[in-house]
Amino acid sequence: MRKELEKRLERAMAYQTALTLFEWDNETLAPEEAGPYTARVQGILSEAYQEVMTDPQMRELLEEAEQENVPGEENTDVDRAVIREAKEELDRLACIPPREYRAYQELVADSARICAKARKENDFESFAPTLEKIVFWQKKFAGYQAKEGQKLYDVMLDTYEKGFDMAHLDPFFELLRKEIVPLLHQVMNADSVSIDDSFLSGEYDEDKQRELGEFLAKYVGFDFKKGVLATSAHPFTTNLHNHDVRITTHYKDRVDSSLFSVIHESGHAVYEMGIADELTQTLVGQGASMGMHESQSRFFENLIGRSEAFWVPLYGKLKELFPEELRGVGREMFVRAINKVQPGLIRTEADELTYSLHVLVRYELEKKLIEEDLDVRELPKLWGDLYEKYLGIRPANDAEGVLQDIHWAQGSFGYFPSYALGSAFGAQMYAYMRTQMDVDGLLETGKLEVIREYLREHVHRFGKMKTSAEIIRDMTGEDFNPHYYVNYLKDKYQKLYRLNLE
Amino acid sequence: MRKELEKRLERAMAYQTALTLFEWDNETLAPEEAGPYTARVQGILSEAYQEVMTDPQMRELLEEAEQENVPGEENTDVDRAVIREAKEELDRLACIPPREYRAYQELVADSARICAKARKENDFESFAPTLEKIVFWQKKFAGYQAKEGQKLYDVMLDTYEKGFDMAHLDPFFELLRKEIVPLLHQVMNADSVSIDDSFLSGEYDEDKQRELGEFLAKYVGFDFKKGVLATSAHPFTTNLHNHDVRITTHYKDRVDSSLFSVIHESGHAVYEMGIADELTQTLVGQGASMGMHESQSRFFENLIGRSEAFWVPLYGKLKELFPEELRGVGREMFVRAINKVQPGLIRTEADELTYSLHVLVRYELEKKLIEEDLDVRELPKLWGDLYEKYLGIRPANDAEGVLQDIHWAQGSFGYFPSYALGSAFGAQMYAYMRTQMDVDGLLETGKLEVIREYLREHVHRFGKMKTSAEIIRDMTGEDFNPHYYVNYLKDKYQKLYRLNLE
Ligand SMILES: [Zn+2]
Ligand SMILES: [Zn+2]
Repeated sequence: MRKELEKRLERAMAYQTALTLFEWDNETLAPEEAGPYTARVQGILSEAYQEVMTDPQMRELLEEAEQENVPGEENTDVDRAVIREAKEELDRLACIPPREYRAYQELVADSARICAKARKENDFESFAPTLEKIVFWQKKFAGYQAKEGQKLYDVMLDTYEKGFDMAHLDPFFELLRKEIVPLLHQVMNADSVSIDDSFLSGEYDEDKQRELGEFLAKYVGFDFKKGVLATSAHPFTTNLHNHDVRITTHYKDRVDSSLFSVIHESGHAVYEMGIADELTQTLVGQGASMGMHESQSRFFENLIGRSEAFWVPLYGKLKELFPEELRGVGREMFVRAINKVQPGLIRTEADELTYSLHVLVRYELEKKLIEEDLDVRELPKLWGDLYEKYLGIRPANDAEGVLQDIHWAQGSFGYFPSYALGSAFGAQMYAYMRTQMDVDGLLETGKLEVIREYLREHVHRFGKMKTSAEIIRDMTGEDFNPHYYVNYLKDKYQKLYRLNLE
Repeated sequence: MRKELEKRLERAMAYQTALTLFEWDNETLAPEEAGPYTARVQGILSEAYQEVMTDPQMRELLEEAEQENVPGEENTDVDRAVIREAKEELDRLACIPPREYRAYQELVADSARICAKARKENDFESFAPTLEKIVFWQKKFAGYQAKEGQKLYDVMLDTYEKGFDMAHLDPFFELLRKEIVPLLHQVMNADSVSIDDSFLSGEYDEDKQRELGEFLAKYVGFDFKKGVLATSAHPFTTNLHNHDVRITTHYKDRVDSSLFSVIHESGHAVYEMGIADELTQTLVGQGASMGMHESQSRFFENLIGRSEAFWVPLYGKLKELFPEELRGVGREMFVRAINKVQPGLIRTEADELTYSLHVLVRYELEKKLIEEDLDVRELPKLWGDLYEKYLGIRPANDAEGVLQDIHWAQGSFGYFPSYALGSAFGAQMYAYMRTQMDVDGLLETGKLEVIREYLREHVHRFGKMKTSAEIIRDMTGEDFNPHYYVNYLKDKYQKLYRLNLE
């Protein structure tokens, strides 16, 4: 690759890394009054990033580089992937008139605050005009970016999960609707089984929760030489690059909240830390997609972390830390408690079974908003109707309903499906891995690293060199197949709730 | 000012802010392995900064803006100061061939590590070749920047303290040599007085030290809505802008170490937080100079913080926090202890009296290095000779001698004098303030904010709009006069050590 092209891409990455550090700092440490000033710096850095990426010379340099007709400047596989990513990013950014993009940026800069205020005051109406404008711009931009005949929502979906458009997602969510909704119904009516999880709540000491969190992060494979564990209001993962990956958690009165958020975020982090060094600080030096990321975090959190086998070598440690709180609670009772199904209104607090139904609601609403010109003012009612239909409960107000997420306020339409896709990707990998190794046996004997190394070999190290679809196919020898996910859930909850197998 | 110029300067400032955040993050949180990757990002951001500032159009825009001949684009006072600063920065940067600057940057990127290794191994020889090259480049660059007939060391001094060249500093340091060295001698021979400070060492609980640190920071005026207090190996202050100022401290077994480092860094922070909002995120939105900064930090640390009056309303709080450690120690005994004179080898641990002698040694050596082509290999011996001459002690090895600071490894020649100048600036302000208000009375009654507001009014709010010399003249009605400093020290230590007044 040409030095000149390399230099420009390096600069673009440096701006991105700086933006990432500001985000991290905002969420974990920055003082209260810094907000608007930091936003300004972030605005300038994003603009600088866009300028580098959309400079007319950039396209020339990329096209030149693709031809590889200069001796000594042949492309490696990494070069080729970087060039592909850069061209896609260029296409995505260059078609939006800078003036419109700036107007949009200004709108979005303030929208999270407006949404948070509306949430606090339970007042969707005060957020509606902003949301309406965000939808307007998002559709306009998608229109610029759309290929001939491409639907707008498909353009948005493509940003988060390449190749998973409505033609793929409709049958996926249809399957969930058809299978998970009745399964949930059965679980809720399984009167013969009652699961006690009351001991998970209580005065769990924060320092001990922190000790447990650090222990579990390490156990899952989080390398503290390459990362940091901090606290923030909502847990998240930030990666500057594969040698600097940061996760957060919160410490609440429910011990499973911090415990599983640490395992979840460590799953994200293990993915980033496992990316090959030859990709560090390039455009392909991150996880393949949002969905693939969630597949890894949920793999560790749910498929592994909520299994009986995982706790065999660990439950003693937990009892040692919290002898009072867990008095009389055996391992089996604990594992049942952390798998209890309880339909709730808040997505981020959902159990493993109901989680994808929260996503289903959002998928249906996004489709209506983008493809059917739904008036945003109708969202609260529709939201309630769908929650009632799929989860059997209805929010009493907008704060625990349509205002609970920040995605729409940030203009992220098409993002939600990745959460459900991720769970399904993970379940397919899990099913395949069980044909290759004794997963439970490894967990029972504390050899989690064998599982992690397998994922590193088949998923992590590639970064963005492969798409999610390619990763799944190459690993399992099969295209994405959501039945593994449905079967996993059916199997797990039929056993747990002793349902009659039809 | 023209929009185009404003936009470019804003971008330059955004790069600087990002660089500052990376520095902060490096020193306080970043994981071990991130170092070289962050260095790369920092390198790219500095280069981007230099490109913006030295772009040929930048000079044109600045010169156009100076003329103010476009109606509606008249300059405010702030604009004029920004243009002046930008031109100086442009001149400073533009005259260095980018190729040479890059070679220098690469050298310096690694030199702190080499210096640290040499320090660890007590081996100056392994650092000497690097230091030699740094001196070479620094002299070369100063040569490019020098005005007709200007001496190289004067060019360097000007970077840190405008207007304080050797013609000013030689008599300043001569005065210190003539007055402080014999004063120290008298103090060390004052056999009739012995000060017990043994109780300052001990098992001071870290959580309580933290509580005390936060209390003192607030007391001095640190606004936690605009700032953060963290820990790091060596205490320092970082400012992103006047609404985001961060300080660190360390918690050691000597309680006065964290206590006075918090007050010192809070002094720096109070300065930055007090800068007028119209200067925020501009080239003049920081403290006037390194010396003026040290004047404020040392004002709070020494002139105020080590006075008897300061502790009148506070000593009770201290006793409450550490009843065991301070059993039988009255306020007077405590104040004597925190003012004990004890010549040592390490600058950063020096007491108020000997501190400027550490600086004197470095000033003499820098002059020799830059103006007299001293071979760097002679530094260790000369260093020892000067410590013996001025402080009466000689380092046993290079780690506690010439290798103790990081300034030279970072290419900062001409920086050290600001520490002594700062003390002298502060003493002059202090003397003047005592003619305007009852400083001790205010401190005794816990009204420190009156003193702080006075400094804000006369020093802080101006940022870089005025030079140090102007600030001192405008505040005190007199040019800089180092006799206030000498008289303050003589008066203080003659009393404390009951010296015969000649
Ligand atoms: Zn996640
Ligand atoms: Zn200082």
